[in-house]
Amino acid sequence: MAEFQAPLRDMRFVLNEVFNVSELWASMPRLAETVDAETADAILEEAGKIASASLAPLNREADEQGCEWVDGQVTTPHGFKEMYQLLSDGGWFGLGGNPEFGGMGMPKMLVAQFEEMIQGACMSFGLSPMLNAGACVSIDYHASQALKEKYLPNMYAGTWAGAMDLTEPHAGTDLGIIRTKAEPNDDGSYNVTGTKIFITWGEHDMAENIIHLVLAKLPDAPAGPKGISLFLVPKILVNDDGSLAEANHVSCGSIEKKMGIKASATCVMNFDGAKGWLVGELNQGLACMFTMMNYERVGVGIQGLGASEASYQNAVAYAKDRLQSRSPSGAQQPEKAADPIIVHPDVRRMLMIQRALNEAGRAFSTYAAMWLDISKYSDDEAQKTKAGNMVALLTPVVKAFITDKSLESAIHGQQVFGGHGFIREWGQEQLVRDIRITQIYEGTNGIQAMDLMGRKTVMNGGEFVREYIAEIEAFIVQHKDGAVGEFAMALSDQVANLQQVTDAVIARAKGGDKVAVGAAAVDYLHLFGFVSYAYMWARMVAVAGAKTSGADADFYSAKITTARFFFQRLLPQTRALTEQVLAGGDSMMALKADQF
Amino acid sequence: MAEFQAPLRDMRFVLNEVFNVSELWASMPRLAETVDAETADAILEEAGKIASASLAPLNREADEQGCEWVDGQVTTPHGFKEMYQLLSDGGWFGLGGNPEFGGMGMPKMLVAQFEEMIQGACMSFGLSPMLNAGACVSIDYHASQALKEKYLPNMYAGTWAGAMDLTEPHAGTDLGIIRTKAEPNDDGSYNVTGTKIFITWGEHDMAENIIHLVLAKLPDAPAGPKGISLFLVPKILVNDDGSLAEANHVSCGSIEKKMGIKASATCVMNFDGAKGWLVGELNQGLACMFTMMNYERVGVGIQGLGASEASYQNAVAYAKDRLQSRSPSGAQQPEKAADPIIVHPDVRRMLMIQRALNEAGRAFSTYAAMWLDISKYSDDEAQKTKAGNMVALLTPVVKAFITDKSLESAIHGQQVFGGHGFIREWGQEQLVRDIRITQIYEGTNGIQAMDLMGRKTVMNGGEFVREYIAEIEAFIVQHKDGAVGEFAMALSDQVANLQQVTDAVIARAKGGDKVAVGAAAVDYLHLFGFVSYAYMWARMVAVAGAKTSGADADFYSAKITTARFFFQRLLPQTRALTEQVLAGGDSMMALKADQF
Repeated sequence: MAEFQAPLRDMRFVLNEVFNVSELWASMPRLAETVDAETADAILEEAGKIASASLAPLNREADEQGCEWVDGQVTTPHGFKEMYQLLSDGGWFGLGGNPEFGGMGMPKMLVAQFEEMIQGACMSFGLSPMLNAGACVSIDYHASQALKEKYLPNMYAGTWAGAMDLTEPHAGTDLGIIRTKAEPNDDGSYNVTGTKIFITWGEHDMAENIIHLVLAKLPDAPAGPKGISLFLVPKILVNDDGSLAEANHVSCGSIEKKMGIKASATCVMNFDGAKGWLVGELNQGLACMFTMMNYERVGVGIQGLGASEASYQNAVAYAKDRLQSRSPSGAQQPEKAADPIIVHPDVRRMLMIQRALNEAGRAFSTYAAMWLDISKYSDDEAQKTKAGNMVALLTPVVKAFITDKSLESAIHGQQVFGGHGFIREWGQEQLVRDIRITQIYEGTNGIQAMDLMGRKTVMNGGEFVREYIAEIEAFIVQHKDGAVGEFAMALSDQVANLQQVTDAVIARAKGGDKVAVGAAAVDYLHLFGFVSYAYMWARMVAVAGAKTSGADADFYSAKITTARFFFQRLLPQTRALTEQVLAGGDSMMALKADQF
Repeated sequence: MAEFQAPLRDMRFVLNEVFNVSELWASMPRLAETVDAETADAILEEAGKIASASLAPLNREADEQGCEWVDGQVTTPHGFKEMYQLLSDGGWFGLGGNPEFGGMGMPKMLVAQFEEMIQGACMSFGLSPMLNAGACVSIDYHASQALKEKYLPNMYAGTWAGAMDLTEPHAGTDLGIIRTKAEPNDDGSYNVTGTKIFITWGEHDMAENIIHLVLAKLPDAPAGPKGISLFLVPKILVNDDGSLAEANHVSCGSIEKKMGIKASATCVMNFDGAKGWLVGELNQGLACMFTMMNYERVGVGIQGLGASEASYQNAVAYAKDRLQSRSPSGAQQPEKAADPIIVHPDVRRMLMIQRALNEAGRAFSTYAAMWLDISKYSDDEAQKTKAGNMVALLTPVVKAFITDKSLESAIHGQQVFGGHGFIREWGQEQLVRDIRITQIYEGTNGIQAMDLMGRKTVMNGGEFVREYIAEIEAFIVQHKDGAVGEFAMALSDQVANLQQVTDAVIARAKGGDKVAVGAAAVDYLHLFGFVSYAYMWARMVAVAGAKTSGADADFYSAKITTARFFFQRLLPQTRALTEQVLAGGDSMMALKADQF
């Protein structure tokens, strides 16, 4: 198995060249204070070392070992505690955190690269900083000043870890029917009682304390989603001076046996009158949780991307090393018994698909992170509004399209290995098993598609989509005479097609077709994703086109070639998706339930 | 997890109604002697009971337990020995075997249904009868009368099991470079020495003896694939009277840790001057092995299908049971907290994809089996020739397209479960892990695609494809006025498109484009597969169309609806595949190896 290398060159290309962060960050005073390109670069470099040298070597063995549950205690695999401590010592848990409470205040565009490296090195472990950061965002945005002061500094320091507790045995997608209840105490706290399942890192031995964010209902709460509140429930209660007090009534009942991310603990959590504190307003829990969820959803997309990058690196190394059969153009290494399999077109095809998807995915997640940063840090109200719209529109696509394409990529990366890809020691099969969860958790990809098609598109009459398309069209006009010219017509057609399909579904939904949104959703999201990746490739070409004869010519010319591959060999899938969406839901819904 | 039920109703539909086996079998005297529709039906019924009641219940636990290797001995999971004995007692190992040596002589069309049930119940176990049958075919077709008499009766009885030993650590796809050597002894036997890897059921405790078919080279053999011979190497030597003698120099060095099919033993086999006997002619080993491989390749397609059917059954049961959110058309079960998720369009979409793929796959594998039967049993030389061509053409498609689509189906079947799909106890994730191997072994799906595009198409100038297309066109002409009419134009377009794409690739390859075949192969195979499934749906509609108002109306109308779904929501993918194939290999091959 190849050693995982953080793809720093590519990350720098995306940050510095494609999205020109220097200029962008300088334009937002609050960001300009904390970060410049040089600082960012040093952070990338250091994060890359940690991911490659410290974390990646743990990944394979941790999968075999898994977590162990004994009497409510969870023991993590070999090396995880030390790794956690290393991140804690380096301040990495607070990388994107609010400086007022000890965070480093780095923009999401940079944090996204850190996340990709960590997830590429080890997804099971990577869930820990990811969930911690998500929990911190929720607290920072919604909790009282007192709660923030009490919890955020230790969470940013990694001394305490975060967990989110939503799902119950009977309630996953449908959180409106949760049963966990919170009863008010006289001192303003609540007693939280109920059982949560699928709680990632709900219990472990890496941190002194674990801060749970728990969805629950007050006894007199309205039925359904409008009666849900969010509570902060620490595993160990915290004294007013910040020291640890007695254990709270929080316990881990068991951990799940899973397909992948086996080195992470997926916990059943029992709250038996555990003390908790309200975060945000009463009955506004879903909104507070969605702050976290949206953050996590971008993180899950990045998680898939990181693992897909690891798969690509392994596959390339194997394809250059493994000798098998001869090139169709004649022996390339006649002195050896066979040629390295990278000479074979079909092996190339698989590697090129991985490249084309990963590099576009990296640009796209960074682009979404850019809008998150602008919506948070810009002082220009119009830009802020547009950024908010783009975050809303793109988040489900980042989550679902990147993870769907990452699974596809990892399956190709496994296939390059032939039979060896199925054997555990080579690591490729683990990446497939690990990535598979990213399509499921934090809202299944089907739910993401419903969000994109329904709330983010049909409900606003397609306003956000038009805004996005206008940006792409402006880009085409601006760049059609350069290297992008080769792709301009195709991209322009794609964008026009996306607009037409969008309009068609909106018309159908407004016309009273109740299944229009659900029937179109997943295929529409994929159509949207492909067009977005095409846009990302065009943006990469716009930068690379001018540099194909310089010092780093091979790097830039590879971008043009990979863009060509994407346009020729992947983008045509939009034709099928378009037909499928336009076919509507009749044949999908026609069977009676008992005909299944 | 739902109890697996052999899909007998659907199998009968395919056999009796779509392909009218009564008439077909009666037309071939050698088959007419051994089987009629009534016998076949009784066999199906009995096989279904075994698969559902005896084998399926072992599957989940066997995956957890796996095989155990200690000092060269492999212990199988709980229940496997008894299951093996049950099949042996029932004569199931010889179901398709040559009656001259104790086989039952049943046609492949029927055997295929048996295989699907067994694989749907437990893939790991199902590999055992599958490999045994394949080994028997190879011996029956190529070995001397003496070897056949000595080995086949006990193999058909299941007393002895079969294994195929091809791969070596450095030689998988490229068997030309194997190093295992066979040195002739004076008594006509050979001493076989070498190491083989990835040998499925190469060692186990279920049978008295294991008969290995081993590829090896004589010391003076020509280099490359033309120097390969096939040897029969028993684990325990057999006396002339058929009794067991001393152990041969065959040992199992270890078993692999794998992604899936964990309950099967994947063995490293060491041959240390083991005694073996030549099967077929010297240096013709690859041809002899391919007799077996082609048989196995159809079997692997069926294996994927069986597991995909199991995934569908589980997903349907869960979708009817799990309550979550409300139907977009308003509450369907207002008295409950939520509606069953089968009301949601996107859940329907996933279930319909599974149905559309599984039912077409069942028809298609049975159709290929029909050509195998005709090529073996027909007395009409022209039919026999056509059948041989069809077997050659369709085998790689059955293997690769069905398994690719089965993985896709099982991923949908897992996704229906949300988070529960990722947890081992529900079984859906196991099916994904198990199916994944079917895309890899018996020749990766990329290799199947090269076979279809190169040897079976370009090399004969597209003759087989034209023959296949002529049949489909004749079918359309014959049926366009009935229920098929609705699909006739679309199918006709698809067939014309397939012909054009075929011609284009042939022209490119003949024009000297050396990567034309490799660059087109996988996408071409998928295009070919979709058109074949469309043809199968049209054939099913031709039968079902007349019966939508009878006693079993719901069954037949579901066929029409599912056909519609296939044509509207899956078949459009041919548009993309066409563009992708026609794009050629330039962008695929343009990068230098060190640009990866």
